Amino acid sequence: MNRPLVGVIMGSTSDWDTMQGACLMLEELEVPYEKRVVSAHRTPDLMFEYAEQAAERGLEVIIAGAGGAAHLPGMVAAKTALPVIGVPVKSSTLNGLDSLLSIVQMPGGVPVATVAIGKAGATNAGLLAAQILGNKYPEVRERFMARREKVKQQVLEGSQLP
Amino acid sequence: MNRPLVGVIMGSTSDWDTMQGACLMLEELEVPYEKRVVSAHRTPDLMFEYAEQAAERGLEVIIAGAGGAAHLPGMVAAKTALPVIGVPVKSSTLNGLDSLLSIVQMPGGVPVATVAIGKAGATNAGLLAAQILGNKYPEVRERFMARREKVKQQVLEGSQLP
Amino acid sequence: MNRPLVGVIMGSTSDWDTMQGACLMLEELEVPYEKRVVSAHRTPDLMFEYAEQAAERGLEVIIAGAGGAAHLPGMVAAKTALPVIGVPVKSSTLNGLDSLLSIVQMPGGVPVATVAIGKAGATNAGLLAAQILGNKYPEVRERFMARREKVKQQVLEGSQLP
Amino acid sequence: MNRPLVGVIMGSTSDWDTMQGACLMLEELEVPYEKRVVSAHRTPDLMFEYAEQAAERGLEVIIAGAGGAAHLPGMVAAKTALPVIGVPVKSSTLNGLDSLLSIVQMPGGVPVATVAIGKAGATNAGLLAAQILGNKYPEVRERFMARREKVKQQVLEGSQLP
Amino acid sequence: MNRPLVGVIMGSTSDWDTMQGACLMLEELEVPYEKRVVSAHRTPDLMFEYAEQAAERGLEVIIAGAGGAAHLPGMVAAKTALPVIGVPVKSSTLNGLDSLLSIVQMPGGVPVATVAIGKAGATNAGLLAAQILGNKYPEVRERFMARREKVKQQVLEGSQLP
Amino acid sequence: MNRPLVGVIMGSTSDWDTMQGACLMLEELEVPYEKRVVSAHRTPDLMFEYAEQAAERGLEVIIAGAGGAAHLPGMVAAKTALPVIGVPVKSSTLNGLDSLLSIVQMPGGVPVATVAIGKAGATNAGLLAAQILGNKYPEVRERFMARREKVKQQVLEGSQLP
Amino acid sequence: MNRPLVGVIMGSTSDWDTMQGACLMLEELEVPYEKRVVSAHRTPDLMFEYAEQAAERGLEVIIAGAGGAAHLPGMVAAKTALPVIGVPVKSSTLNGLDSLLSIVQMPGGVPVATVAIGKAGATNAGLLAAQILGNKYPEVRERFMARREKVKQQVLEGSQLP
Amino acid sequence: MNRPLVGVIMGSTSDWDTMQGACLMLEELEVPYEKRVVSAHRTPDLMFEYAEQAAERGLEVIIAGAGGAAHLPGMVAAKTALPVIGVPVKSSTLNGLDSLLSIVQMPGGVPVATVAIGKAGATNAGLLAAQILGNKYPEVRERFMARREKVKQQVLEGSQLP
Repeated sequence: MNRPLVGVIMGSTSDWDTMQGACLMLEELEVPYEKRVVSAHRTPDLMFEYAEQAAERGLEVIIAGAGGAAHLPGMVAAKTALPVIGVPVKSSTLNGLDSLLSIVQMPGGVPVATVAIGKAGATNAGLLAAQILGNKYPEVRERFMARREKVKQQVLEGSQLP
Repeated sequence: MNRPLVGVIMGSTSDWDTMQGACLMLEELEVPYEKRVVSAHRTPDLMFEYAEQAAERGLEVIIAGAGGAAHLPGMVAAKTALPVIGVPVKSSTLNGLDSLLSIVQMPGGVPVATVAIGKAGATNAGLLAAQILGNKYPEVRERFMARREKVKQQVLEGSQLP
Repeated sequence: MNRPLVGVIMGSTSDWDTMQGACLMLEELEVPYEKRVVSAHRTPDLMFEYAEQAAERGLEVIIAGAGGAAHLPGMVAAKTALPVIGVPVKSSTLNGLDSLLSIVQMPGGVPVATVAIGKAGATNAGLLAAQILGNKYPEVRERFMARREKVKQQVLEGSQLP
Repeated sequence: MNRPLVGVIMGSTSDWDTMQGACLMLEELEVPYEKRVVSAHRTPDLMFEYAEQAAERGLEVIIAGAGGAAHLPGMVAAKTALPVIGVPVKSSTLNGLDSLLSIVQMPGGVPVATVAIGKAGATNAGLLAAQILGNKYPEVRERFMARREKVKQQVLEGSQLP
Repeated sequence: MNRPLVGVIMGSTSDWDTMQGACLMLEELEVPYEKRVVSAHRTPDLMFEYAEQAAERGLEVIIAGAGGAAHLPGMVAAKTALPVIGVPVKSSTLNGLDSLLSIVQMPGGVPVATVAIGKAGATNAGLLAAQILGNKYPEVRERFMARREKVKQQVLEGSQLP
Repeated sequence: MNRPLVGVIMGSTSDWDTMQGACLMLEELEVPYEKRVVSAHRTPDLMFEYAEQAAERGLEVIIAGAGGAAHLPGMVAAKTALPVIGVPVKSSTLNGLDSLLSIVQMPGGVPVATVAIGKAGATNAGLLAAQILGNKYPEVRERFMARREKVKQQVLEGSQLP
Repeated sequence: MNRPLVGVIMGSTSDWDTMQGACLMLEELEVPYEKRVVSAHRTPDLMFEYAEQAAERGLEVIIAGAGGAAHLPGMVAAKTALPVIGVPVKSSTLNGLDSLLSIVQMPGGVPVATVAIGKAGATNAGLLAAQILGNKYPEVRERFMARREKVKQQVLEGSQLP
Repeated sequence: MNRPLVGVIMGSTSDWDTMQGACLMLEELEVPYEKRVVSAHRTPDLMFEYAEQAAERGLEVIIAGAGGAAHLPGMVAAKTALPVIGVPVKSSTLNGLDSLLSIVQMPGGVPVATVAIGKAGATNAGLLAAQILGNKYPEVRERFMARREKVKQQVLEGSQLP
């Protein structure tokens, strides 16, 4: 299970600050992944090529982050049969509400699995990818469940208020 | 592949008008599913029981629809390792913006794969479930791709403007 | 009147900065309370247990604070007959509008007594708990009224503009 | 327990369509109440008089509904030590978002227990009043719990999907 | 023309930072005014008294600033026949959108002349008061027009871009 | 007092349905007025001419209604020293939120006295004009106060709930 | 000047009701155009092909209408050097606010000339195309100016209020 | 091609921080332009004069930036047949949502080509002007295309993630 199963893409290097949350989670869960800058607007042909080849290259889930008029997740979803998870990056003017609506409000026919705006969303994108893969790869599911149990114990034992 | 792979749940019978979009799509793609009213607020214990048993009962994806302060998708996600798809049902007062934010803005740790508000979202929830299952069940992927090709042909051939 | 009458719960230690406003107010009004981290999404079973046992443990009001897709107040309300006060914690992306709608827009059948977003809301949650208890405990009502009179005098006497 | 314990007030007869939800619920739970039109803007002195005398007249909870720049709940709350429940009536232009913010965003010192916009909110206001009274009047609590159990059974038994 | 013609009131000393914009403008235009903290929620009786006596005390315009669930301008307007100008103070959570809607969305019968959120609005409140007074006091109109001409000249002559 | 004191203008005949509320109120209060279609975008020169000549023609208040990117009130205000009341007409897409923000958020220097969105706002524009004129014309103030008293009595006597 | 200078495209035949406003305006101004359904999500390759060939086929302006997560205008703009005008089609759930933000909030590098939501926007898209073409084709500019003059006369002469 | 083809105007020197993005882009593409402060509200006559003379002075595109109740782009568009690009400047209270709606929601008849809020929008305004001019001036189109190609190469070669 060493070839990448998840492709993490983002519209710009400036999205990395948000999107590394997804990568860190995938590493924690030992899910092999690749990451890359693919811009819907500045490298549209690369985006289509990436989406078209994703399945045959062995990817099973794509995580795509973008901000503002965020077209990357939806356009990738239009060009692949793989499930695409969209992360709305917080935008400088409208706090990511524009990113969220541009990603989640897809028309009937081309879904994007949208998560929360910003870092929490990126972290959850990694987790959601693991949940999707967990149906097929029992060891991923087990690691997901072990992590959840661990977090629960941390809350139960370690959440002391002043 | 006759036991249900997808559980379609909703908070109230009044959500059926929206959520049948998911069921129709699953039928079109020949994905076995079950459907049920499970209310986060009126039947909380049933909700937890449903979520806890979903994986062992053989479900691989849960689609949950709810409106207003929509807690069903997120609470089910907190109780299962399966991927949960959330459908924001259009609410009578705020047009589903409340439903959307209540579902998508999950904290780090418990993702909900959120789709668009209303019927288009429900349809896409069915498609997204098929995309997720497609990684493991090649025949589902094939039916997904055949449908997409058919839709594309319909647009190319049949979209005559006056 | 030394056993706790009010349970103050919150989804995470990071909510304490907001929620201590409720605790400070309860202390000022000498209303016995307990406080605890109870997470809807990370410790769902604890949440249900807490809500189910609250009344028999002698609590008469629950104050629950949470942010983002804030499910804690509503889910606790679904599992107890006690009045539940919900405090929308200001979220990092949407300023607490998501928290507010996730808490206040409850469906018919399960109310949450929602107060303002953030610290002012937490302070008011403490006051509202005292108002509710004041019907049964005259000394709490008296302290509430004395505090209100004191605040009024402070405004009347001390509000000098430059 | 025949004198009114709950005062249901609203800014205009046009709010009755919404606010009767609160009255129907109070009747169902056999909680004695009174109802009256009291306008913050058209009868401000009556509003103050009503609020000032509410406690001595034996009321223990006030439910106030208003729309648009909805000042009734907050101003009544400023003049009584009783808990005040605010119902945001759906407005014709902004769907009640203005009503909601005008009621819930109270400054520290004067809480209003805000419920959902519109009819569901009014119904919940009646339930919340019963939850508050339930601390002191065990028979109200019992009726509240019996109703909740009944609703749960209805969902469990009667929610057949097509 | 030395008795105050304009009363500038605000809900809290913390509003002064915004509201001094109105006072500075009135001073610049030599319009006599008074200023005072009058809180709708903490000193409701004072508020009513202030509004009731405003006209007989010789005031001709009232400027009222408040934030959040801002009830001061509308409640004062309900108790006086004088024109009331409302200044929405920027709130810490919702940027003053709550303040704006709470002030501007008054029901038919009780208008509040609402200006922009924050400091620009406070400055404009001072100008609007002068415009209102200018109908009766020609010297105020003249000073208003002289100031406008001066500002125009400053823009025409002094607006050099790098 | 027969020459018009108030000029009621609107961007289009389609605004009349809303703006007649202002005219009806002015008639009820016997305030002489004129009404006219003046479009900021389609007849900009007429708009400037109207604004420039308003004061010398004897007008003392201008009421301007417009929808969407509503520029009429603010541009008229830039060209006259008279107080300008802006009525945000409800727009077909965004319910008048665009109209409201386009009118109320004026920069420092050029205020528009903004009232509520739609018909209630138009009615209030008429009342506000009367309040402004009432400082100079005691008979207008008296009629304003008589009307307010009458409305109060109607509420007190006639607001029977079922 | 008979080959099409403007390409009017839309994501679906259901957008025609809105987009015909652009076509009618182009006809009125005698600007040759073509119209076609091109879906970003259902026919992504056709979209890219259309955008890539637009300039060499002689088009000088593209008008693209779409609703919801509206990606058509922005993706076409990423693949052509021609100016692209985006029309946000009113969506069934969020009134076109999602369409607007998805179109206008483009990142630096790929502009879309965005017009108003809905039919007025489509009409204006036709006019804006004519304004753009008017720099190069004087007869188009003349027709634009003649139309504007005609509209102005209609307002001046024909806008009788009751 | 040395006389200015593009006029860049803004309501205030404080808008320069945003609007220089447009100027920098025009310089990069060697499009001659002029820049000037023209305020809709403080210098309305200058604004009309500027708009009226723009075409005869040889300008072919106007870029206008403004914030809050932003009337400059729309009013200039009402007075010229040239295409007008509107840049919504981010406002201090509502993050530029008010600016955006005040600019984009123009009524049928007077379009403004609206770009994104803030600096990215200003940059895109410069690019859009070049796209418009590119139809008539092939060298501008070529420079636009060369720049786009260069940006694409930068993304392809230089977007290394950590």
